[in-house]
Amino acid sequence: MNNNLTPAETASWLSERDRFLLITHKRPDGDTLGSAAALAQGLKESGKTAYLLPNPEVTPRYLKYVEDYFASNDYEFDHIIAIDTATPDLFPENALKYKNSVSLCIDHHKSNTFYAESVCIDSDRAACGEVIYDILTVMSGYISSMTAERLYVALSTDTGCFSFGNTTSNTLYVASKAVEAGAPNKDINKLLFRTKTHSRVQIEGMITSSIEYSFDDIVAVVTITRDMMQITGADEDDLDDIAAIPGSVEGVYIGITIRELSSATDCKVSVRTRSPYDAQSICAEFGGGGHKQAAGFSIKKPVAEIKNELSAVLKNKLAGAANN
Amino acid sequence: MNNNLTPAETASWLSERDRFLLITHKRPDGDTLGSAAALAQGLKESGKTAYLLPNPEVTPRYLKYVEDYFASNDYEFDHIIAIDTATPDLFPENALKYKNSVSLCIDHHKSNTFYAESVCIDSDRAACGEVIYDILTVMSGYISSMTAERLYVALSTDTGCFSFGNTTSNTLYVASKAVEAGAPNKDINKLLFRTKTHSRVQIEGMITSSIEYSFDDIVAVVTITRDMMQITGADEDDLDDIAAIPGSVEGVYIGITIRELSSATDCKVSVRTRSPYDAQSICAEFGGGGHKQAAGFSIKKPVAEIKNELSAVLKNKLAGAANN
Repeated sequence: MNNNLTPAETASWLSERDRFLLITHKRPDGDTLGSAAALAQGLKESGKTAYLLPNPEVTPRYLKYVEDYFASNDYEFDHIIAIDTATPDLFPENALKYKNSVSLCIDHHKSNTFYAESVCIDSDRAACGEVIYDILTVMSGYISSMTAERLYVALSTDTGCFSFGNTTSNTLYVASKAVEAGAPNKDINKLLFRTKTHSRVQIEGMITSSIEYSFDDIVAVVTITRDMMQITGADEDDLDDIAAIPGSVEGVYIGITIRELSSATDCKVSVRTRSPYDAQSICAEFGGGGHKQAAGFSIKKPVAEIKNELSAVLKNKLAGAANN
Repeated sequence: MNNNLTPAETASWLSERDRFLLITHKRPDGDTLGSAAALAQGLKESGKTAYLLPNPEVTPRYLKYVEDYFASNDYEFDHIIAIDTATPDLFPENALKYKNSVSLCIDHHKSNTFYAESVCIDSDRAACGEVIYDILTVMSGYISSMTAERLYVALSTDTGCFSFGNTTSNTLYVASKAVEAGAPNKDINKLLFRTKTHSRVQIEGMITSSIEYSFDDIVAVVTITRDMMQITGADEDDLDDIAAIPGSVEGVYIGITIRELSSATDCKVSVRTRSPYDAQSICAEFGGGGHKQAAGFSIKKPVAEIKNELSAVLKNKLAGAANN
């Protein structure tokens, strides 16, 4: 079993080395990008050289926080660090060749497969950004405004601006420190949480008017078809946290979002639950994973068929939960 | 001019006195109720007697945080403290008789009229709950889980779960302390920010599909009619933060929500702006007030007429802003 380093040990590990390449996960969110950029900035301020492998799927809303840290094609590095990435299966295409040579993985996912030589995993943290904060405060005892801005992006996106159930006292504490250090929380919140594009407003309207309730209304299912994406002109950014919608209706314990991707038989399913229902165990039935109250899976079937299969799985799970 | 006490001086003021009646403002929100209940609980833990004047307009979502602190009809008190209430005009009906006998006002509104004998006002605080925290930590140095829960309600509701532009490092710090002390942030967030009733989902759909854009789309106006309320069965709770909707559309700087109250000529208008536009100055033209980026006014006219008058005012304001 690989060594799970403490933040202090990780700070020492970093101090003893140089020339890092940081890898973020595919379909990158604010936590993987913000955490990696914050670490790169913090390392740079400590006199190190650190760049991110350019993630080909970065969406416009996050680009400005990471683009200055992207490695050029001829960047020569000595150590690969994976950020917020539970398994090498989550590496973007251009990182797959590195999957057996990761020196360090910094993460907060319980499901981390310990694929790196060394790891620094704290699964009590809501965001990987909190782990990065722990490391940087030991390493240099200093958080610059540029680091703080990226940490704030990481913390706030993984916790829905501190509204998700994973938010802890520590998340809020680190956020307060980031804002104190100059993170422009007002601008970031406005951009990431309080602004909706016209497309988003339109697709939300479509989704909320077509919610399907079942199992005495404790299950709500919404479908995002390719047609809906085309009509509204919505892109990936427009769908951020959209999986929270069905689960946000009063009385709903299991919110399911089915989305058609490249074709009508290439779907992604997101499951959000409230206790006692376990999203991870529902998704595990389809080969997926995630957290206890937010998980997902990919499936090569049409929406109607997925609904039937989900229904069968839920029938069992709900009967099981009722017996507990 | 009355004395603006520091939190430490306010703690002394409270320590030297006893038997308090706390007044919250009309159309009570989480900040006035949570702050008053937190102060009552904190005073109780310091051996004092303190109750809230029952606010006749408390909505179901906040009731459980305050009902145990409501004074009985025969409660005999020596000192009246107004909480989060900028002027006596904002007193609920049953408090109007006390408007000239308020001993202390604890508040965070810049617009406070200093109507109380003594005041403790910190207009740098996003929520009145932060001022209460400052006072209680000096007074007893201790925040119980019951106090913390109510402080968290205060902080989170006045900042849209820490997403509004008013949220500071201190807000997040006090929130982290409240969660550390046992505030069930997960449950509160789920209840107040991540759950929508069927009525809310329905009325939001109606509102978003009828947004009217003007002035090159930097102004967005929505109207909530009495018909819409009736059709959806929406109540006051269902409209919480609804005024944020028009201003949340990308590119909109001035979001206006017009709502019919008791009749079609009894309206309430909420204005939300982004810099450089000043909501307070727009509302001042109609005799209203509030904060720089969130203000409002009441007006006894039909919606169409209000729209025309607003349009004329905005034309001037926008011309003025363009010249600066």
